[in-house]
Amino acid sequence: MPVMAFPRPIITLLTDFGEADAYVGIMKGVMLGILPEVQFVDISHQVTPQDVQQAALILSTAYSYFPAHTVHLVVVDPGVGGQRHPIVLDTPHGRFVAPDNGVLTYVRLLEPSSKPFVLDKPRFWRTSPSHTFHGRDIFSPVAAHLASGVSPREMGSPLEQINMLPLRPLEVTPTAIRGEVIRVDRFGNAMTNIMRLSWVSEHELELQPLSVVPGLEAPLRIDARQTRITCSWHTLDRIYRTYSEVAIGQALALVGSNGELEIAVNRGSASDALALKVGDPVTLHLLS
Amino acid sequence: MPVMAFPRPIITLLTDFGEADAYVGIMKGVMLGILPEVQFVDISHQVTPQDVQQAALILSTAYSYFPAHTVHLVVVDPGVGGQRHPIVLDTPHGRFVAPDNGVLTYVRLLEPSSKPFVLDKPRFWRTSPSHTFHGRDIFSPVAAHLASGVSPREMGSPLEQINMLPLRPLEVTPTAIRGEVIRVDRFGNAMTNIMRLSWVSEHELELQPLSVVPGLEAPLRIDARQTRITCSWHTLDRIYRTYSEVAIGQALALVGSNGELEIAVNRGSASDALALKVGDPVTLHLLS
Amino acid sequence: MPVMAFPRPIITLLTDFGEADAYVGIMKGVMLGILPEVQFVDISHQVTPQDVQQAALILSTAYSYFPAHTVHLVVVDPGVGGQRHPIVLDTPHGRFVAPDNGVLTYVRLLEPSSKPFVLDKPRFWRTSPSHTFHGRDIFSPVAAHLASGVSPREMGSPLEQINMLPLRPLEVTPTAIRGEVIRVDRFGNAMTNIMRLSWVSEHELELQPLSVVPGLEAPLRIDARQTRITCSWHTLDRIYRTYSEVAIGQALALVGSNGELEIAVNRGSASDALALKVGDPVTLHLLS
Repeated sequence: MPVMAFPRPIITLLTDFGEADAYVGIMKGVMLGILPEVQFVDISHQVTPQDVQQAALILSTAYSYFPAHTVHLVVVDPGVGGQRHPIVLDTPHGRFVAPDNGVLTYVRLLEPSSKPFVLDKPRFWRTSPSHTFHGRDIFSPVAAHLASGVSPREMGSPLEQINMLPLRPLEVTPTAIRGEVIRVDRFGNAMTNIMRLSWVSEHELELQPLSVVPGLEAPLRIDARQTRITCSWHTLDRIYRTYSEVAIGQALALVGSNGELEIAVNRGSASDALALKVGDPVTLHLLS
Repeated sequence: MPVMAFPRPIITLLTDFGEADAYVGIMKGVMLGILPEVQFVDISHQVTPQDVQQAALILSTAYSYFPAHTVHLVVVDPGVGGQRHPIVLDTPHGRFVAPDNGVLTYVRLLEPSSKPFVLDKPRFWRTSPSHTFHGRDIFSPVAAHLASGVSPREMGSPLEQINMLPLRPLEVTPTAIRGEVIRVDRFGNAMTNIMRLSWVSEHELELQPLSVVPGLEAPLRIDARQTRITCSWHTLDRIYRTYSEVAIGQALALVGSNGELEIAVNRGSASDALALKVGDPVTLHLLS
Repeated sequence: MPVMAFPRPIITLLTDFGEADAYVGIMKGVMLGILPEVQFVDISHQVTPQDVQQAALILSTAYSYFPAHTVHLVVVDPGVGGQRHPIVLDTPHGRFVAPDNGVLTYVRLLEPSSKPFVLDKPRFWRTSPSHTFHGRDIFSPVAAHLASGVSPREMGSPLEQINMLPLRPLEVTPTAIRGEVIRVDRFGNAMTNIMRLSWVSEHELELQPLSVVPGLEAPLRIDARQTRITCSWHTLDRIYRTYSEVAIGQALALVGSNGELEIAVNRGSASDALALKVGDPVTLHLLS
């Protein structure tokens, strides 16, 4: 009688399947048939249908909080049944199973030592895979085998490069950094691609270069009080530490939980109040 | 100190409770009190409130992907507190706990050797069950006991027949098969009840009789190129293998992941583009 | 090789994060890094953003169905980063981790022997906690340590009192009890704060005093046939046992699954049919 050894295998799921249909449950059923002791964690199933860019972004903000032995299964797959290949990306901070359509772009950049493999060994798939649901027939069984200890090398062949989404660089001048809104969350907080900000003293921030958003060449010190942020038709006076530093209902800029410049309203919705949406330009003006 | 033996017990949940209220969590709490080592899998909690037909359909497409020892708990129960009985259906490919209101119709037909039991042993229920939430007070404890090894026979009495929903047969003529849209998924793909289609050669399909959708007497060979599909006001030229065989934005008919005739739009929504909804007639014309 | 001992640790989650963003998944990732064998149960992530009152209510109806060793993690936290403290509430029927903003009001009243602790030991948190996501950086690690056996006393300091929401008492006269709608569920059933009703004979109910809704001094016997219920512009003739005692489509009052006076429509939506919403007054008239 086998017993459960730790670390217990973990598989996360990120899809655009929604929760109304049985697709996610079916994938879990397939994986439980291969690896009964797996722990599933749903990252999100509400990616906008077929929005590879959005899924890539969500994945890049989530994976690093999981144990390194976690397998991340990503099925946002508008090209299912076509020419795109199924791949595994092996990194020191997680292994990723996904279609090769750019959804692993940011992980690949954040994990320079990562190794991609094309999945070309059908004996690890369900027999007679469908042409419309590789999530069930290819990606799920591979994720389960991976989490159970089969190596990427057994299930695929090394790949030189994977498909990458085009990057949107920051525009950096001596007096301003121009980025954009990349996500609006349920609270109406707008996250921007001006990322990797951290507080280094009471009033001083450091902005560091980040491979996924090129444009900045070297770390930059910023006096939070000597900034002005413009977005949409609005101007915000400086970068704060937390929501409650301004009055209830007031808009502010602050450093979000992933180090990004975030536009918010204390106990309200910046998206509603400032009419912000994904793609809107945001400029961080450096006054000093 | 007991250790976990495999196969680990699995309970799936299919309800119309939504995810905003605590109902699903409460049922899981009750089951964990009986069977701490259970693995839950949510099939869906977004069944249209009280839509027994829809739940029956979702269940029938999902259960076969789970290990055979899985217990499937279905709580779509408009008649709670009234005359309908709680039942267990024991099959070689899963055990099902549900109200006897027709929600197990398709499983019953797909599993001819299945055995139904009426749940008439209150000692396996919560004490003083409510009149409004049998999901918590009867179905959940029974599902947990079942998954922990108690036999259906201990918890109920054999039943001759269960309540069945009326079936909607296909209309089959020498030149056409007429069915209907039975589900539209999150992507806007429309699934029809022209089911159990499979590719047998490059251009040839086989359509096999299926107990849950009567009307076809014997297997039928179909040349995919010699078909025309009409639905709503639209005509589609043939059956394809996968979305990417047509241009982006173009509508097509193909074989869906459960073997059903599916109407889709490559990287778009057939439901939007063709104004398709559940119940719309779909005809597969056989030209050769 | 360690083996899993029972009782298996359970952590429930109740938040206003929704399911579209990765916030919930990230918290689970953090907890799995501390306690790999944990069983998660989602209570709800669809609390109206920043609605502490609503979360307090949902929690109070759910926690008692879970095993007593369960840890309940509640992150509805409009004041994150401000003056409110993170706390643990230790009770004989579960332990609760939450911001001290009133979200534990009802649990505190229902569990008079509960003991609160302020979380003031950062060594149990993630290093350098953010100012905007204490769910990830403080509450999740504390919940995981608690579920793994660390005592509240090790992670915090005893607290005299916690912040409480104002209570809304019932208005009780010899001929009527006046309360209000406190929740409308997905089916359109309206739950009221006239709670702790139970059937004591075929036609007789008992209403007992309840600390979370003061106003009633002593238990009250009620003849269900001698009642009239008014809500919004409607009058209902008596209290029934279950939905199916009235015709399909007819409105009725009955005792809900948590002992509350509930307004419903048999196989329909009371919220739609009677235009009921949270806060609407409901009066139970005693005719005898």
